[in-house]
Amino acid sequence: MENALNLDTVVLSEDKKSIIILDQTLLPNETKYLSLDKAEDIWEAIYKLRVRGAPAIGVTGGYAYYILADQADTENMDEFVSQCTKNMEYINSSRPTAVNLSWALNRMHSVLLSEKEGKGVAWMKERLMQEADAIREEDIQISRNIGAYGFELLEKLGKGVGIMTHCNAGTLATAKYGTALAPVYIALEQGWDPKKDLHVYCDETRPLLQGARLSAYEMQAAGVDTYVQCDNMASYTMKSGKIGIIFVGCDRVAANGDFANKIGTSGVAIIAKHYGIPFYVCAPSSTIDMTMESGEEIHIEQRKPEEVTEMWYEKRMAPEGVGVVNPAFDVTDHSLVTGIITEKGIATAPFKESFEKMGIKPVEKYVDKKSNTPL
Amino acid sequence: MENALNLDTVVLSEDKKSIIILDQTLLPNETKYLSLDKAEDIWEAIYKLRVRGAPAIGVTGGYAYYILADQADTENMDEFVSQCTKNMEYINSSRPTAVNLSWALNRMHSVLLSEKEGKGVAWMKERLMQEADAIREEDIQISRNIGAYGFELLEKLGKGVGIMTHCNAGTLATAKYGTALAPVYIALEQGWDPKKDLHVYCDETRPLLQGARLSAYEMQAAGVDTYVQCDNMASYTMKSGKIGIIFVGCDRVAANGDFANKIGTSGVAIIAKHYGIPFYVCAPSSTIDMTMESGEEIHIEQRKPEEVTEMWYEKRMAPEGVGVVNPAFDVTDHSLVTGIITEKGIATAPFKESFEKMGIKPVEKYVDKKSNTPL
Repeated sequence: MENALNLDTVVLSEDKKSIIILDQTLLPNETKYLSLDKAEDIWEAIYKLRVRGAPAIGVTGGYAYYILADQADTENMDEFVSQCTKNMEYINSSRPTAVNLSWALNRMHSVLLSEKEGKGVAWMKERLMQEADAIREEDIQISRNIGAYGFELLEKLGKGVGIMTHCNAGTLATAKYGTALAPVYIALEQGWDPKKDLHVYCDETRPLLQGARLSAYEMQAAGVDTYVQCDNMASYTMKSGKIGIIFVGCDRVAANGDFANKIGTSGVAIIAKHYGIPFYVCAPSSTIDMTMESGEEIHIEQRKPEEVTEMWYEKRMAPEGVGVVNPAFDVTDHSLVTGIITEKGIATAPFKESFEKMGIKPVEKYVDKKSNTPL
Repeated sequence: MENALNLDTVVLSEDKKSIIILDQTLLPNETKYLSLDKAEDIWEAIYKLRVRGAPAIGVTGGYAYYILADQADTENMDEFVSQCTKNMEYINSSRPTAVNLSWALNRMHSVLLSEKEGKGVAWMKERLMQEADAIREEDIQISRNIGAYGFELLEKLGKGVGIMTHCNAGTLATAKYGTALAPVYIALEQGWDPKKDLHVYCDETRPLLQGARLSAYEMQAAGVDTYVQCDNMASYTMKSGKIGIIFVGCDRVAANGDFANKIGTSGVAIIAKHYGIPFYVCAPSSTIDMTMESGEEIHIEQRKPEEVTEMWYEKRMAPEGVGVVNPAFDVTDHSLVTGIITEKGIATAPFKESFEKMGIKPVEKYVDKKSNTPL
């Protein structure tokens, strides 16, 4: 399954009885797929971040709902609804702050509640499978569209382009393609040579190293000429002339184009502007919150200091008792953004007008108010 | 010895028979001083980076020359010179690319060769001790002056100022005070409250973490309110309004003010300019190379990829076979520099004129052409 476009993050098994996920806690050292059909195992996989990335967690939630519903040992619809409700609440408790998880579970549950009248349990099980598949397919389509718009930019820059990215917003974070890395996958689908036509530079992304561990892994699995660099090397690499464009993902976009993303993103944007390198944000339109005027309204969560000081929890690398700065993400000012690539097109400044022209409306339930996605 | 200004990096023992160094390979977890009097042990301490930082290595070289000369078992001057020459060559082989080491050894040897006529071995041993002490004293005076000029800037900003630094250019890298951190020590000497009047933010400085391990350690040892942050958090912290000034050290300065320093420095400078935060380089005038027109002439060494990918050599954090960017340092453009603080005053743009007004002349032998100081 290590082919460029078949590195499956989360899929339904062929017999439709279990969820198959790539265990991301073992990356980059081991590629292992888990087949999950017990509620406890699915719960643990989400809790332990074996599956991570907001869209991928949403897809997992949809399949979890279906798989557990399919195991219900009743033909009585009320009893079936009761079992589904209980399972939904249990799965949701695995990561209560992951908005995509509760969004997907609620979407599944709404289908059940709104369509159950006059239908049997067997029919409903089939219907739920379709809905879970639809969640995955919609996610893939969004990523694919973002990738296609991003690929148009790569085509303008020409083959041989160097791309820089921060954190992981690739296929590992979604059902397929990802957001920031989707343009790369579309380029491969379009026949670009992964070793010659594209060069991808991944910021390692301290403290949790999603760039080194995940982005570098999936780009390498796709055969792409891939480089890892410490975050503080971004300026050096940009200055070298090797970088033609920068793609990053995002957690949340305000109406004016300010956006929140993994810590360090704003620094990359500032440095890119200094060197005149185009800086693009890849964002499903569902992450654009038109009710939020600017990024100033975004609350920035501080995470535990040990992530910084204990180097992947093996060895303490800073003195005991020292203060630690460890914000989960930062807010990048819209003035630093060349464009925001959504599945509906590429927005440019002034962003609010551009979003409105695209018909982007806030899908409130899809927006993670805490932007709390640690891996 | 953990008092603010008594964290001795390298000193002569009270009986003048051994060198006492703080073993920096054990920091920040253990504070251990080593007393060295055997050539092999001194060689090993330099080779293994138990003592590091260009000025500190120079001071060690001077004392090493004296300590070993003092052990010479002859009253014959020719025999004494022969033994000193042999010892000098042996010690120099511990880190052949460390220019300060060979500079200090050569300075000691020149004293021996130029002053030996008509003098006895006993007199010469005493003279060599004086010269080694002079090397240390001169280094302290340079740092102290840099600190005093830097402190004037802190006074203008007022008590409560937040200072950001990158890598370690503190007392651990020199005989005392350091360069970038010298203004902090002078402030403490002037009675500033270490917990209230100063707040120091240390970039952890990947890949080798000199900021987290060393700068945070020495600032904490001095009682200063100290914070460690991942390098990619610098933008977040600067945006927060907590940082009033940035001090960094440097390996080498060109005549136009471009300078080379630890990788990541240029990114900090670009981000500081974006937020309008004053950015100062602390540089002994000996590191200013007036024969070099600009930073473009500086060769940037690439170091081994495992520093980036194997997380302090304990666990591989990026996939096998991935490309790695790992430059030892980067060059920061003079347009990003507010001022360059030397022991002779603070140079400002246009830097070349400013350097000339200060009477700065290149001391070629003191300049490290490779700027190859890994820790």
